[in-house]
Amino acid sequence: MTLTEIKAYLEQFFQDIEILGEVSVQIERVGKIEGAKKGDLTFVSNPKYEKFVSATQASVVLVPKKLELNFELNDRAFIKVDDPYIAFVFLLEKMSPPREMIPLGVHSTAVISESVVMGENVSIGANVYIGNNCEVGDGTVIGPGTVILDGVKVGKNCKLYPNVTIYDGCRLGDRIIIHSGTSIGADGFGFAPKPDGSYRKIPQIGIVVIEDEVELGANLCIDRATLGETVVRRGAKIDNLVQVAHNCVIGSNTVIASQAGVSGSTKIGNNCMVAGQVGFVGHIEIADGVNVGAKAGVSKSFLEKGQTIRGAPAQAIREQMKQEALLRKLPEMMQRIQALEAELKALKS
Amino acid sequence: MTLTEIKAYLEQFFQDIEILGEVSVQIERVGKIEGAKKGDLTFVSNPKYEKFVSATQASVVLVPKKLELNFELNDRAFIKVDDPYIAFVFLLEKMSPPREMIPLGVHSTAVISESVVMGENVSIGANVYIGNNCEVGDGTVIGPGTVILDGVKVGKNCKLYPNVTIYDGCRLGDRIIIHSGTSIGADGFGFAPKPDGSYRKIPQIGIVVIEDEVELGANLCIDRATLGETVVRRGAKIDNLVQVAHNCVIGSNTVIASQAGVSGSTKIGNNCMVAGQVGFVGHIEIADGVNVGAKAGVSKSFLEKGQTIRGAPAQAIREQMKQEALLRKLPEMMQRIQALEAELKALKS
Amino acid sequence: MTLTEIKAYLEQFFQDIEILGEVSVQIERVGKIEGAKKGDLTFVSNPKYEKFVSATQASVVLVPKKLELNFELNDRAFIKVDDPYIAFVFLLEKMSPPREMIPLGVHSTAVISESVVMGENVSIGANVYIGNNCEVGDGTVIGPGTVILDGVKVGKNCKLYPNVTIYDGCRLGDRIIIHSGTSIGADGFGFAPKPDGSYRKIPQIGIVVIEDEVELGANLCIDRATLGETVVRRGAKIDNLVQVAHNCVIGSNTVIASQAGVSGSTKIGNNCMVAGQVGFVGHIEIADGVNVGAKAGVSKSFLEKGQTIRGAPAQAIREQMKQEALLRKLPEMMQRIQALEAELKALKS
Repeated sequence: MTLTEIKAYLEQFFQDIEILGEVSVQIERVGKIEGAKKGDLTFVSNPKYEKFVSATQASVVLVPKKLELNFELNDRAFIKVDDPYIAFVFLLEKMSPPREMIPLGVHSTAVISESVVMGENVSIGANVYIGNNCEVGDGTVIGPGTVILDGVKVGKNCKLYPNVTIYDGCRLGDRIIIHSGTSIGADGFGFAPKPDGSYRKIPQIGIVVIEDEVELGANLCIDRATLGETVVRRGAKIDNLVQVAHNCVIGSNTVIASQAGVSGSTKIGNNCMVAGQVGFVGHIEIADGVNVGAKAGVSKSFLEKGQTIRGAPAQAIREQMKQEALLRKLPEMMQRIQALEAELKALKS
Repeated sequence: MTLTEIKAYLEQFFQDIEILGEVSVQIERVGKIEGAKKGDLTFVSNPKYEKFVSATQASVVLVPKKLELNFELNDRAFIKVDDPYIAFVFLLEKMSPPREMIPLGVHSTAVISESVVMGENVSIGANVYIGNNCEVGDGTVIGPGTVILDGVKVGKNCKLYPNVTIYDGCRLGDRIIIHSGTSIGADGFGFAPKPDGSYRKIPQIGIVVIEDEVELGANLCIDRATLGETVVRRGAKIDNLVQVAHNCVIGSNTVIASQAGVSGSTKIGNNCMVAGQVGFVGHIEIADGVNVGAKAGVSKSFLEKGQTIRGAPAQAIREQMKQEALLRKLPEMMQRIQALEAELKALKS
Repeated sequence: MTLTEIKAYLEQFFQDIEILGEVSVQIERVGKIEGAKKGDLTFVSNPKYEKFVSATQASVVLVPKKLELNFELNDRAFIKVDDPYIAFVFLLEKMSPPREMIPLGVHSTAVISESVVMGENVSIGANVYIGNNCEVGDGTVIGPGTVILDGVKVGKNCKLYPNVTIYDGCRLGDRIIIHSGTSIGADGFGFAPKPDGSYRKIPQIGIVVIEDEVELGANLCIDRATLGETVVRRGAKIDNLVQVAHNCVIGSNTVIASQAGVSGSTKIGNNCMVAGQVGFVGHIEIADGVNVGAKAGVSKSFLEKGQTIRGAPAQAIREQMKQEALLRKLPEMMQRIQALEAELKALKS
């Protein structure tokens, strides 16, 4: 790939790209700046790696606009761009050969009901099971060992990795990615107590709906609704080992990090950021754009948009930081109490 | 279904059911009160939905006994019952067509050892593996991709969803439900340190025993005992992504919510309620009927029956709330110290 | 097994083994001290079980060196050893028949690419899938339903339990154990925000490297690197449901308990002990030999070797215990403030 091609490609996404140094370089590979060689394209985004820039043998380096190139450029090119990391990612995507999970076509060992409506250019792996009355859209890839029970609709250009399970009746949109071992549509956790202390299972007859462009990590669980739908809205990204309980709604473009858990019927708004190991109680609502700190325990609704909350129980960050600051002042408070006691004693005697 | 049939059915479970309004209605569907139409049976349990009651077009509404029907009943019937939600659930179960995971019978792609003792009316999905010397009881359904290693006994009328793994030698009772991706009987996490800092694996030669009527969620883990048995007692319900370590005992009718973890050899009593993301250290004992708040860190035994504990480290709720209250008083304490200092200074001068 | 054989075997691992009592006993089984019978070998390690020693009918009891045998030895033998539990484990391993997950050989239903390089004495279970250009070393066992995508290298004498997924390009060393449902090499959780609030997926083109003698629990997740490698070093042991994010390094002989999570690019040293439900933020470094208490939230690097940290945010244990102690003194502090106020008021009037 030539520098001219790279520039043209990046200009689809970035404005005001500036090129310095040798323009005739050819790019053959991409890689990290440590150990980069001639023919490599690399980047520097984190200031602590800037020291590598002058010494690198990479042929092209994506650098932040504000970086001063006060050294010999030699036969290298430097591309100044707003966000070198994202620029690198775009190029990485363009230059990497596409990873094919499995060969195109339906593997002979896949067990597919005759009633399945199959799109074009679909790839179905070995030992896949697809039940009655399912639909699989054009260009979708389903990894070995994945199981899709009756009446599921999977949209176009989805990628389901191996050993995923989709329970009956769930609906998946287009361009969805689901990683290995994930469970979509298992029964919600609902039991009615009986007088003898045992429980009667509450039937879970709803479904799960996953909208377009959602990515779901590995070994996570999204339970079907008791009635109606558990919904993950367009563009949401959910990491490994997350729990989304029955009847939840996860908003559009909301990001949930690993091992967080959302209890039943809780609604999380659009464009939220939920850090790892956060827990939400059931039946609450979180406004759009809320940012939840790692390990927070969210025990009530937060309806103000765009706020940051943390702690367990979670509070607005200002309250929570005040409390943390006072906790750090406990030794000082104790000393001041002791000083007061001593002074008072002296005063009295 | 006629109102007479509904009443007769509910009277198996509830006393003093009262019917008001039009008794000739016919029920065709069940649904939520928002958007219910003629022919629907619905319910109101949560007071905030009571406003929907007068306006609903549903033909039958299950309502709490204390709800006053001070509006036109029109051609609708109202059934007063102690717990409309549970009544609704019973009716839902009766009126919903049973969901069949897979067709009856053994799929031709299932790999089943000749030595397996198979009950009647068993359904085995595609690509299931059942090892030597296993038993599968009457009416049990095993989903596609599930793997059962040697010497496992599965009782009657169990439902194992897809991609479950049961390790060798484990024993499952009757009417057990296990959701997709769950792991039963993996090796307990036991390692003996060697002088060079590395570890020697401690053999895990025990098993897991799951008693009748247990329901286990998706992607959870119950490890086999080092020696003897890890046990989940009759009627316990365990949610997705929970960890139950080697040699634990989970009591009868105990409910454990998602992402909780129980460390090795800990015994949890009967009829306990454990909320989400709780952690228990190993080798402790929890009495019957104990209620553990979300995210608690239980670091010692709690032997008083029926108590509620919370916090990390977990304490009896009274202690824990006192401490939380004092934390909220920290700003006030600081102000009172400052006031004392000022007064003392004034007094001295 | 005779006592002479037992002694000879243990002397490979322990010094100064002392035998008391009847030396002609024969061992047929191993078991717990409660309920042990003639012919059993058992052990006592925990002082609270010492009361069972004098009464046991076991033929041989492994006991701590310091235990005084001030009772009738009868026709039993007692073996004094530094660590009876580990001694027992060694014997357990020797005396137990090896558990074979599946029969030797490649099952006819396994789908294995022609390009796979297969070692000798390999066992491949039913419905396994192995993609193009993989290698499987001598003596390795791969359980039913496990999926290995293209270009994966699995070393010698590994044991992969059922329904595991290994993504393309990952490299596993020798003598590795991976339990059921685990996901190795799923895409790291990386997304670049776009101006409209949606996210563009950052390609994850790195791999996961698992070194020799690592054991990984069930349903855990180790994500592939964005670039380069996510690494689990030799001899590390990771429990069920743990999350290891992209580009992490887990040190040699480090032990991580269930449900802990390590965020992206964090490096954990060698010989660390991480308790259950701990969370680490991304891009930090933990020194060798650090001990992390249960449920800790590690929000910064800890570079001092061998220290113990706990709490959320995690602190050195000394700081953390001071703060906990002061929290317990809050009621006393409040009382002392009230006393000061009363005295001052009295003094003024």
